[in-house]
Amino acid sequence: MDKAAQSQIMSAVDDLFDEEVGFLAELTKHPSTRGNEQSAQSFMADALNNRSFDVDRWQIDVADIQGLPGFSPVIGNYEDAVNVVGSHHSRSKGKGSLILNGHIDVVPEGPLDMWDQPPYEPHVDGDWMYGRGVGDMKAGLACNLFALDALRSLGFAPAADVYFQSVVEEECTGNGALACLQRGYKAAAVLIPEPFAEDLITAQVGVIWFQVHLKGLPTHVAYAGDGANAIEAAIPLINALHKLEEKWNGPEHRHGDFAHVHHPLNLNIGKIQGGDWTSSVPAWCVFDVRMGVFPGQDLELARAEIEAVLTDAAQDNAFLRNNKPAIVYHGFQAEGYALSEDKSEEAKGSISALETAHEAVTGNRLDHVAITATTDARFFGLYANTPALVYGPRAESIHGFNERVSLESIRRVTQTTALFIANWCGLESL
Amino acid sequence: MDKAAQSQIMSAVDDLFDEEVGFLAELTKHPSTRGNEQSAQSFMADALNNRSFDVDRWQIDVADIQGLPGFSPVIGNYEDAVNVVGSHHSRSKGKGSLILNGHIDVVPEGPLDMWDQPPYEPHVDGDWMYGRGVGDMKAGLACNLFALDALRSLGFAPAADVYFQSVVEEECTGNGALACLQRGYKAAAVLIPEPFAEDLITAQVGVIWFQVHLKGLPTHVAYAGDGANAIEAAIPLINALHKLEEKWNGPEHRHGDFAHVHHPLNLNIGKIQGGDWTSSVPAWCVFDVRMGVFPGQDLELARAEIEAVLTDAAQDNAFLRNNKPAIVYHGFQAEGYALSEDKSEEAKGSISALETAHEAVTGNRLDHVAITATTDARFFGLYANTPALVYGPRAESIHGFNERVSLESIRRVTQTTALFIANWCGLESL
Repeated sequence: MDKAAQSQIMSAVDDLFDEEVGFLAELTKHPSTRGNEQSAQSFMADALNNRSFDVDRWQIDVADIQGLPGFSPVIGNYEDAVNVVGSHHSRSKGKGSLILNGHIDVVPEGPLDMWDQPPYEPHVDGDWMYGRGVGDMKAGLACNLFALDALRSLGFAPAADVYFQSVVEEECTGNGALACLQRGYKAAAVLIPEPFAEDLITAQVGVIWFQVHLKGLPTHVAYAGDGANAIEAAIPLINALHKLEEKWNGPEHRHGDFAHVHHPLNLNIGKIQGGDWTSSVPAWCVFDVRMGVFPGQDLELARAEIEAVLTDAAQDNAFLRNNKPAIVYHGFQAEGYALSEDKSEEAKGSISALETAHEAVTGNRLDHVAITATTDARFFGLYANTPALVYGPRAESIHGFNERVSLESIRRVTQTTALFIANWCGLESL
Repeated sequence: MDKAAQSQIMSAVDDLFDEEVGFLAELTKHPSTRGNEQSAQSFMADALNNRSFDVDRWQIDVADIQGLPGFSPVIGNYEDAVNVVGSHHSRSKGKGSLILNGHIDVVPEGPLDMWDQPPYEPHVDGDWMYGRGVGDMKAGLACNLFALDALRSLGFAPAADVYFQSVVEEECTGNGALACLQRGYKAAAVLIPEPFAEDLITAQVGVIWFQVHLKGLPTHVAYAGDGANAIEAAIPLINALHKLEEKWNGPEHRHGDFAHVHHPLNLNIGKIQGGDWTSSVPAWCVFDVRMGVFPGQDLELARAEIEAVLTDAAQDNAFLRNNKPAIVYHGFQAEGYALSEDKSEEAKGSISALETAHEAVTGNRLDHVAITATTDARFFGLYANTPALVYGPRAESIHGFNERVSLESIRRVTQTTALFIANWCGLESL
């Protein structure tokens, strides 16, 4: 593509940018936490219908996916777990077919008084738009949509089939992306604009979620010392898990892409609840753990090691010796994934197409980075033999308070995405 | 009283004992946890009305009691906080007037699957009746009521005024007993049949309840090490509180009555809750603490020491340095109480009357013990200059699972109570 064509596409994104920002604000108003994605998905389905995509909207059926690799145990029921996919059927049927994937679910907002403004009333201050999910990753969905809009405004459509996916369940299982695979959506490459500051993610960790359930007869309050109650019995288990975390982060255990990453595998005690009455020795406590694993690390072995560590720690505690901890796996059982290991022509070609687009828009080379989080990329890369490129705008405080995304970064990513589509899919006239 | 009269009274208790056991089972069916005492209180009011007591039933008004010594901060609202008092107005107006006090509230039952039988479907197995609250202290209420019934069946009533109190809020504040004082109920002595195995309680600890609220911006999950999150930030605070507990239990800090008691002051972490999402670093955590204090230990100084310990511990933790813990006092702010220090004629006389009765029924001397829990006795002893005798049946697993009370112990305590009334109040014919 010559510079003039590039400029034309970038200008087309500029022309629609106010509309894109307005779209993002509207989308962010939907509080699409797990189980509450329906209105946001309706908004997305309407947007795709208005643009003449062939829209497929379906409720995920656990029976369809539970036997597939990458499936994670379901949290809650799936009555409200609805995916939306808009298909663009090209005339040219070029080789560079593409899935543009993004997730609609957002994580809980936490205590409202920690937000400077209400989390579902998005507002702009300088270059930043604020709101829960505005960065992770409704901005990415907007980039995907308006990149195609910009091309259309110039009279173009992709010259290969493109599948626009708005999926649920990214934040706890990935079963939304898995359900898209199961439903037959395949392409030569995938782009997922997760908010990682315009870097290309070439390796991501895996994530295991588990709950530790402590329940049993505590000793009487009259003898309430260390380890006599279920809440305090959690402490040595948490300490033991941190020791395992340090071991797994050791240089000899690291995946090569993470050799120079500071503490890539993180253990997070994300939730805890226990006890019923201040003057009763608590008989139960449950805490929820998120633990990272490296690409290539076997999940079954990882779980066995976690269990062994908890069992050992239980031996040293008065409560736990008599009341063994029960480990329940729910949510993420996600393997790590390294795009860097994909030596296919499709990987080379799609990465090259993205690099070219990024350089044209930003004037800089595209940085390749390894991240300490997971994304839906793993499903495409590990279970569908499809290179999955994670590349999206700059956001801050995702999963935190005053989550925000850079508007100029959204503009650049939308431009890069439009150029990438032109490079990778080719263009055909409408 | 001669042996024949004693025997007659004890036999009268025996004659009514099946009825007493039935009454206790009915009362235990009412799940009278805090806020849910109404149906149990109606049952009690009906029982008193049927026996021609002058029944006073009123909703506690916080405004009436909040300025009084011994008041504890209220948990929840008091719309359902209703006391019941039945008055016996004697003709003789003897000096030995008496308050028979018991609490109707029970602590939560905890996980139902930890009970062998449902907690509010009382059942008998051998000498034990099982159910939540059956020991703590519905059995005591039954003892009080059927002791008077036994005397009545013989044609007698107490020769001094007797106030039968069924109060709420014993398990979290004691404000039910305080409201009885405020309403004007006074007597020369008080009997509270809390389930301490037919011993006379001559000293009890005080209890402070407090919540520790942790809330603030955690560091990012990418740097989630020790102390980076609100849940884990609770751990050093809990450890620091245990150090304070050990200090207060030290020989140089002890009240004399507790010199030989094993670890009299107990710290209990009774409840905890924190975090919203397994993969979000938790921004908040709240835990509930119960701490004992000795009789004579100043509550204000105790609270100041607790606060200082928490503030110091916060200095050493990454999360807490930036997010100071907030301490909220709710529920018990209860001083310790030692009946042993009451040298009044009323104390000597009432204790002697109980000792005589106990020895007549059991053949053993009445043991005097110090307990590591609190009871409503403190209100009468500390704030109304009235000796409060805690003496009740044997129970096991109170505040635990399969709570149970010994039926033969109930029989003996009912007999002892009837003899005590005869000794202390004197008798008049109906």
